[in-house]
Amino acid sequence: MTRIVNVAAAQLGPIQNSHSKKEVVERLVQLMIDAKKMGCDLIVYPELALTTFFPRWYAENIADFDHYYEKSMPNADTQILFDTAQKLGIGFYLGYAELEQSSQGTHRYNSAILVSQQGQIIGKYRKVHLPGHAENEPWRRFQHLEKYYFEYGQSFDVWDAFGGRFGMALCNDRRWSETYRVMGIQGAEMILLGYNTPVHNPPAPEHDDLSMFHNHLVMQAGAYQNGTWVIGVAKAGNEENCEMIGGTCIIAPSGEIVAACSTKGDELAIARCDLDLCNSYKNTTFNFEKHRRPEAYGLITSQRGVIKPASPVQKIESLN
Amino acid sequence: MTRIVNVAAAQLGPIQNSHSKKEVVERLVQLMIDAKKMGCDLIVYPELALTTFFPRWYAENIADFDHYYEKSMPNADTQILFDTAQKLGIGFYLGYAELEQSSQGTHRYNSAILVSQQGQIIGKYRKVHLPGHAENEPWRRFQHLEKYYFEYGQSFDVWDAFGGRFGMALCNDRRWSETYRVMGIQGAEMILLGYNTPVHNPPAPEHDDLSMFHNHLVMQAGAYQNGTWVIGVAKAGNEENCEMIGGTCIIAPSGEIVAACSTKGDELAIARCDLDLCNSYKNTTFNFEKHRRPEAYGLITSQRGVIKPASPVQKIESLN
Repeated sequence: MTRIVNVAAAQLGPIQNSHSKKEVVERLVQLMIDAKKMGCDLIVYPELALTTFFPRWYAENIADFDHYYEKSMPNADTQILFDTAQKLGIGFYLGYAELEQSSQGTHRYNSAILVSQQGQIIGKYRKVHLPGHAENEPWRRFQHLEKYYFEYGQSFDVWDAFGGRFGMALCNDRRWSETYRVMGIQGAEMILLGYNTPVHNPPAPEHDDLSMFHNHLVMQAGAYQNGTWVIGVAKAGNEENCEMIGGTCIIAPSGEIVAACSTKGDELAIARCDLDLCNSYKNTTFNFEKHRRPEAYGLITSQRGVIKPASPVQKIESLN
Repeated sequence: MTRIVNVAAAQLGPIQNSHSKKEVVERLVQLMIDAKKMGCDLIVYPELALTTFFPRWYAENIADFDHYYEKSMPNADTQILFDTAQKLGIGFYLGYAELEQSSQGTHRYNSAILVSQQGQIIGKYRKVHLPGHAENEPWRRFQHLEKYYFEYGQSFDVWDAFGGRFGMALCNDRRWSETYRVMGIQGAEMILLGYNTPVHNPPAPEHDDLSMFHNHLVMQAGAYQNGTWVIGVAKAGNEENCEMIGGTCIIAPSGEIVAACSTKGDELAIARCDLDLCNSYKNTTFNFEKHRRPEAYGLITSQRGVIKPASPVQKIESLN
């Protein structure tokens, strides 16, 4: 059986606040058609791919921003994406703001779904690593209120699809090695990851000129250290006076970038991804069964923040 | 108080089996003198810096190789290194094979020590991630018998020294993101890391031409993701017909390589390392208290190998 998945990383240019969801979905459909013409089985869209990145603004009443969220999926705005996927036989990953009404109340998440070549939802992921802040901080040139607008997702899952094992993540998740490792332990062979990343980081502008380097560094390391493909897809360009990085790319299990976008607009980067390329990493250097040492990793799950223990100098010196 | 540490990464060229420890220590002392002339406070030597990388050979009787191990530290061969350190006021990190005789028997470790500018041992580290294999595998062009010659170290500790918080690791440890994270959680500001890495990986020769890329990728990601300096120091060149990578470098908390060796021989790479450069990473993007989500990381400590769960497709679809 072939284990090759032809993937399109579908970078989006900016989505301005004035753009309707209908207009945005038309762009997504066009990219899907173009990807199919290139023989793709799967197209990967960015995080919050249906709207502008609204967490840059503070709404005193959070419900005033509910129009940015999807109350069901598919819905009237997005049905055509599912229909086109089914008609063309192409799967997709889509990031969007999710609003869930349940008997427990209203819940908001930064979510992504994986949809099959038959237009069926295979899995849903809710963002675990929400960056930014929860309080209104108007001193920033633009805000990053994800901790205000969304609840935390609780897990990194994997799904068997497209002949392999797939994981999902969103944006800031990619900076945390745990993201890749938790999915790597579950055998992930391809991790789909959309992002919206401003060039400018208001609390640390001294990092701005390294934003693209950091973007690629963390995804390449995550791919190599877990022997998995990583598909990183940006919403890029100047969105509502916030300049966002591009850098959309497809990363092989070797950590090498094998396809990349070079604009800040709607653009496809395409690669023929052999899932069996994961094997030589998963079976040798990163054979987890043989080489992981979880007994030394306890602090990773037992500690949230930095601990400042007494220096163990005496303990160690006594060994001599 | 100044938080700048002037560091020399002291790459070593090959140590052949015929070289005496006295000859090797003379090279280390010369590098120490040269580092002091450059104003350095700390010199970092490679892993197994006193001998050839003997785990490439199989000894039927493990004790036949005990001459490669240090039974105490300092000892007659290495005393001059401690004396020179004290005289010059320069600290050092040294990797070596350690043999410990205790009432419980004989224990062998792949170890490193951190020594103060007063020539006193501050801390000792025993390698956690022993790579390679435990069985004789003569089909390999050269073997990698670390799992045979050494017992596993159990923890990644940190020590307060040189005005900051220091961690140690060895070689294969650098490929595992957990190494940096466990020390990062303990506030490490500089991680010292010696290695011996063959260009050729007998079980996966398809990775050979990426060995330098992988070497830098994992150390740069580990530095950035924990806001810590990383000093990676190679034993390089053709040692007993095994070609080893160089790539010795000093990596800033930004993930940038700020100093590097360019030969495969004895060579110093030097940088003026401001420990306060860690702060803008530790306090923003990688503010662990604010942004880590340990409740999603459980598999990292509960699982050694890869698990193959039933695909959670049904669970997720029911959410819609």
